[in-house]
Amino acid sequence: MSPDPGRAFAVEPWVVREPRLDLDRMGQVESVFALSNGHIGLRGNLDEGEPHAMPGTYLNSFYERRPLPYAEGGYGYPESGQTIINVTNGKLIRLLVEDEPFDLRYGQLRRHERVLDLRAGTLTREVEWASPAGRMVRVRSTRLVSLTQRAIAAIEYEVEVLDAPALLVLQSELVANEQLPSRDEADPRVEAALTDPLVAEQHRCDEAGATLLHRTRRSGLRVAAAMDHEVHGPEGVKVTSEATEDIGRTTVIARLEPGQTLRLVKYLAYGWSSRRSLPALHDQVRAALAAARYTAWEGLCGEQRAYLDDFWQTADVEIDGDAELQQAVRLAVFHVLQAGARAERRAIGAKGLTGEGYDGHTFWDTETFCLPVLSHLAPDAAADALRWRQSILPLAYERAEQLGLKGAAFPWRTIRGQECSGYWPAGTAAFHINADIADAVRRHVAATGDVVFEREVGLELLVATARLWRSLGHHDSAGEFRIDGVTGPDEYTAIVDNNVYTNVMAQQNLRVAADTAARHARAAAKLGVNAEEMASWRDAAKSMRIPFDEVLGVHPQAEGFTHHQVWDFENTPPEKYPLLLHVPYFDLYRKQVIKQADLVLAMQLRPDAFSPEQMRRNFAYYEALTVRDSSLSACTQAVVAAWTGHLDLAYDYLAEAALVDLDDLAGNSDHGVHIASMAGTWTAVVAGFGGMRMDDGGIVFAPRLPPALSRISFGLKWQGRLLRVEIRPDEAEYRLVSGPPMRLRHHGEPLALADEPQVRPIPALEPVEPVEQPYGRGPKARHPGS
Amino acid sequence: MSPDPGRAFAVEPWVVREPRLDLDRMGQVESVFALSNGHIGLRGNLDEGEPHAMPGTYLNSFYERRPLPYAEGGYGYPESGQTIINVTNGKLIRLLVEDEPFDLRYGQLRRHERVLDLRAGTLTREVEWASPAGRMVRVRSTRLVSLTQRAIAAIEYEVEVLDAPALLVLQSELVANEQLPSRDEADPRVEAALTDPLVAEQHRCDEAGATLLHRTRRSGLRVAAAMDHEVHGPEGVKVTSEATEDIGRTTVIARLEPGQTLRLVKYLAYGWSSRRSLPALHDQVRAALAAARYTAWEGLCGEQRAYLDDFWQTADVEIDGDAELQQAVRLAVFHVLQAGARAERRAIGAKGLTGEGYDGHTFWDTETFCLPVLSHLAPDAAADALRWRQSILPLAYERAEQLGLKGAAFPWRTIRGQECSGYWPAGTAAFHINADIADAVRRHVAATGDVVFEREVGLELLVATARLWRSLGHHDSAGEFRIDGVTGPDEYTAIVDNNVYTNVMAQQNLRVAADTAARHARAAAKLGVNAEEMASWRDAAKSMRIPFDEVLGVHPQAEGFTHHQVWDFENTPPEKYPLLLHVPYFDLYRKQVIKQADLVLAMQLRPDAFSPEQMRRNFAYYEALTVRDSSLSACTQAVVAAWTGHLDLAYDYLAEAALVDLDDLAGNSDHGVHIASMAGTWTAVVAGFGGMRMDDGGIVFAPRLPPALSRISFGLKWQGRLLRVEIRPDEAEYRLVSGPPMRLRHHGEPLALADEPQVRPIPALEPVEPVEQPYGRGPKARHPGS
Repeated sequence: MSPDPGRAFAVEPWVVREPRLDLDRMGQVESVFALSNGHIGLRGNLDEGEPHAMPGTYLNSFYERRPLPYAEGGYGYPESGQTIINVTNGKLIRLLVEDEPFDLRYGQLRRHERVLDLRAGTLTREVEWASPAGRMVRVRSTRLVSLTQRAIAAIEYEVEVLDAPALLVLQSELVANEQLPSRDEADPRVEAALTDPLVAEQHRCDEAGATLLHRTRRSGLRVAAAMDHEVHGPEGVKVTSEATEDIGRTTVIARLEPGQTLRLVKYLAYGWSSRRSLPALHDQVRAALAAARYTAWEGLCGEQRAYLDDFWQTADVEIDGDAELQQAVRLAVFHVLQAGARAERRAIGAKGLTGEGYDGHTFWDTETFCLPVLSHLAPDAAADALRWRQSILPLAYERAEQLGLKGAAFPWRTIRGQECSGYWPAGTAAFHINADIADAVRRHVAATGDVVFEREVGLELLVATARLWRSLGHHDSAGEFRIDGVTGPDEYTAIVDNNVYTNVMAQQNLRVAADTAARHARAAAKLGVNAEEMASWRDAAKSMRIPFDEVLGVHPQAEGFTHHQVWDFENTPPEKYPLLLHVPYFDLYRKQVIKQADLVLAMQLRPDAFSPEQMRRNFAYYEALTVRDSSLSACTQAVVAAWTGHLDLAYDYLAEAALVDLDDLAGNSDHGVHIASMAGTWTAVVAGFGGMRMDDGGIVFAPRLPPALSRISFGLKWQGRLLRVEIRPDEAEYRLVSGPPMRLRHHGEPLALADEPQVRPIPALEPVEPVEQPYGRGPKARHPGS
Repeated sequence: MSPDPGRAFAVEPWVVREPRLDLDRMGQVESVFALSNGHIGLRGNLDEGEPHAMPGTYLNSFYERRPLPYAEGGYGYPESGQTIINVTNGKLIRLLVEDEPFDLRYGQLRRHERVLDLRAGTLTREVEWASPAGRMVRVRSTRLVSLTQRAIAAIEYEVEVLDAPALLVLQSELVANEQLPSRDEADPRVEAALTDPLVAEQHRCDEAGATLLHRTRRSGLRVAAAMDHEVHGPEGVKVTSEATEDIGRTTVIARLEPGQTLRLVKYLAYGWSSRRSLPALHDQVRAALAAARYTAWEGLCGEQRAYLDDFWQTADVEIDGDAELQQAVRLAVFHVLQAGARAERRAIGAKGLTGEGYDGHTFWDTETFCLPVLSHLAPDAAADALRWRQSILPLAYERAEQLGLKGAAFPWRTIRGQECSGYWPAGTAAFHINADIADAVRRHVAATGDVVFEREVGLELLVATARLWRSLGHHDSAGEFRIDGVTGPDEYTAIVDNNVYTNVMAQQNLRVAADTAARHARAAAKLGVNAEEMASWRDAAKSMRIPFDEVLGVHPQAEGFTHHQVWDFENTPPEKYPLLLHVPYFDLYRKQVIKQADLVLAMQLRPDAFSPEQMRRNFAYYEALTVRDSSLSACTQAVVAAWTGHLDLAYDYLAEAALVDLDDLAGNSDHGVHIASMAGTWTAVVAGFGGMRMDDGGIVFAPRLPPALSRISFGLKWQGRLLRVEIRPDEAEYRLVSGPPMRLRHHGEPLALADEPQVRPIPALEPVEPVEQPYGRGPKARHPGS
């Protein structure tokens, strides 16, 4: 329980505790402690606003436009980008203790603790502070962003005077256009700063609350924020409110005797729209606020816990033998839920709503890393995310046409559907995102068996992406179907021919589109699909070129890759990583050096396309080239390491994926948590150690425990059932928690599961040749044996 | 002599005549009529300044810095660009006729003619104009930029009153920070606009002149412009001068009777420096002005003609059978001379000093297209241009280091040596520029036999570039030396492996560097070259990978190129060209479509690397793919078409190269003339129809006349000799105009040449298979038979 001095947080199974305030880690902690329901996101800023690393209040898909400049422009370059912006801050509660503003940088902080409770869904804080004049107070606050009432956040704030009577003033605020710290724009991963993006439209106040309405200057979106308060205190408490264009303020004044407490409950409601009128939006947030007050604080907390109890019944992952990892995996699953729970047909961003990294954009990792997890743990959220993709199809059709292609070309990075990538070799050219979306559809349908979703949502996405591939590729004179000049997942290689990842994913996309269209012939016909077109998809899939290096016996990542010079890892000192900040793309692209799993991810997502021998050889080959300068790699390497028998290595990679934000491994957790790595953590456990795959024959497992762990247990939803799997060193247990009987396979052995749990022995692992990583780039070994 | 109404100019052998004023063609004409000596450039603006398309007064290498913005930055991206700027305009002479400003847009223009005289080196104008009030004047002006006095330009300006007495006011001016028309920034080829770049430092005037000194705001360069005048007129002429920060003005007032003439001679001097003090620069231009006045107008004109007489004795190309082409070829040679004559260790830009296109930058085409011509016609200018490259070696070493390479990496585009390319796939990655510089060295040494140049300049350039190639390439496991991830000349393909052009040029670079170092062992040792290093160059050259498609029997432009999809030319309408403005790079890069000769240029520059059969097959293959969206293509296609027996086609391409600016074929002559295409015009004649090559055995010719022409004659300097070659339908004549006896080969036959001309029959041409261009992209046929 006593924290490692090198870490921000204490290790406990169900909570993340910050035992002391560390100004240097403030940004990381704000991200880890961010609360979100997928619609509203509040960074873990202190109630009083300062000190902070980055204040953050976000609404899903609420953005401002900004110009994208080019030293040398080109046809089809997007001229305008979209950037998530910090909206009206309603978290603020300032405190004055006898003329002294409560500010942790002054006076004496006698005790500071914050706790993110993963079962309660709250962030709690407890502080004892002596003002510079020596007056002692204790402040307790609890914050939640409601998972049940999408528009609502709430804060309970209590001040107790400890030593002598004191006059307290609480100022609970709404602040628009907060002053933000400036950012280091030299790092391409850091978002663009946008100053004062909100234009005031209306401000109102009543006795104990206020409402502010603003619109964005360029994107023309309207946002409303409203607050209301309950005050509990001694006799003579005075409550007043005021509002100006950018500030709403409720002021509570009370004189407290020692031991007395002033308690404030703040209800916050947010709403935004690109179309609704000022009065409509005003009324919408006031109604949400009324409902929240009606539910009351205790009611909101109760709903929150009930929602999470239900979630954890499915989603909990138990890990015995590594307390740090246990905590990290639960935090990871919690943040994935937060990112998607109530996104409701809007995008799930790479950082969720926990920070402004990557401008708040959504990339391919939502479909490749997040949705497969949500399809098993919170299927409605996954379905809604894919419905969002369906809703932006008109933009994707337009983009394809602009690029001279058929079907849909989804944006590489976006908030609302428009392409916002300003570097096409790693943006537009990364067409694999379209196959990744199709794969998420396929997995979701397999996981849920939801035929209505398949017909109404999945089919259109599959058809649109299959058409893209059919027009993007071509048959060469030997009859092979080639996809030239594209970029795969690995961003240290770009604009290549026949990237194996892209080709195997496109192949599956084409096949699944044809099969799905055949199953829903009438719906497919409405989309203009006919037998000829389906045949052309199947034909392209069948003749898809998959390059193979016969000399080395491995798949080249793309045509010619294995002929390139191998990066000089021995002479690359640690401070040169991440390489993209110290080496030109020119040099990275033409050498064998891999930022993130590419061919290895192809093996994870299309294991059917590789023989076990190929998988082993490929994994060993690419391990030696992969530097993991991206957080989208360790989880994939964990899965394939586990599949190829490198259990200790898989364990090390799992830990790296899981701890990315708790230990700030990428050094940029202050910009928001890494939702994909967190989702990949679950996948590393379930697909990696659990060996879970879904194929035409159903769901299969091939569980194996790494030596350091004594037990893993995980649950997942599968076609209307709740299934729990427990892996022990020598055996695995399958339990059907709810739902009708089912069949599965355990290490290839068919198994019928009904009321009774089934236990099966785990076959012995065949010894494997060790693999090596590039010099200095191996994962941190979690114990001497690994 | 009567002009084609579709053309701006009349056809005459030695002059370019504009017979009438066409406001729509003003920009093109300003470029074609630009006068320059390589140090100063004056666009062909009207004396009175307006109307204009783009006023332009340029000084070689005088630039302003501007930021290069990126939507997404990257390591090694240049942050700052360099842009040529319009300096103090000294061409201005305004005229007031009885209160009416002389402006061709008002009143009546009774006659207008301008003549660029290629032997006199002057631009002459003659105008008869009736003012809106009906007063008639005749204005004659002659302008020159002195080829003998580098800092000097001069204008003779005469006004004659034709009908009735009139009071005339002449204002002869220097104007800094002229107001410029705004430009269409959507076209990446159009330069960035820079407003008011000059900061005034000093202004002075005396009785008949003025001096203005300014410095640039950001690049910190200082420029001085000074003028002085001679006035010849009737009694009572009054001359006064004044100066303010941005304007110097000499005013001449005279009352003229009909038939009387007011004559003004304006002497202009320019100087600039990054280091010299204000007084030093002031005195420098005043001294230049004094020298010019001492020489006087007639003296300057005489020197100019003598200089050009001498030049034309070598450089004249006579073409019998196509008067238009005759004129165009002479204009082309004239502009190439103008661009380089007095550049003197500064860059020769892609537009010379005739416009602001491409920001005034210098690219690879200086070395590949221009210098081989200058080495034969004005060798000192070629040597100086290469000395400029030597002078920027420190910056090129620095850039190589930044890119992780050894040796020198010359900038893709620059004015003063710093890389200014804002799009690395077609900038930094186009490493071939380094081999192109080495090739210019090799050609210059071969053409001049200048051993001192070779030792003092050439060697260092060859060593620096050879080192670059040695570090850029690597040996693969089969022992082949590969150069991966670079971009060749064709800008519709980028970031490829083993571009054949790059590899054969690098191969030669490595070989020639080793040979040259061996010849100058002591100088090479000073550069740190030892036998091991030379061996490593020779080894890399020997094992250089040159991909070949055995199935098609052609060289792929780069690895895998021939497997790509062929562009759908049939469905590409004419308005979609140039493709780069209507199609994303993404689509261009991955398909078989070629902007400009790449493999075909490799065959032109390294004919020794291809068998005749390969040359024929390759030419036919690439003809069908090349759309010539660049002006750097027709001249090369002309050469190789001639070599492969396609004489009519070669003739069509020659005409296209020659007429690029006279007929504004690229539609952008207003941004400046296409110096490389003009130089390539000479090469198309001499290397194409003349079959001129230089190899280890000396100089060889294989002349052939296209059927449409009855005679071609050209001259060139070769190792201290002046040689003239005349091609007639069935025979060729070689004449040694000056210099010691020499040997050459004629269609393979050795031939000794001394005082007596030698005539040899031209062997019959074997019939060849016709070749085809992409749909709609063939060159304009010059006559029905072609």
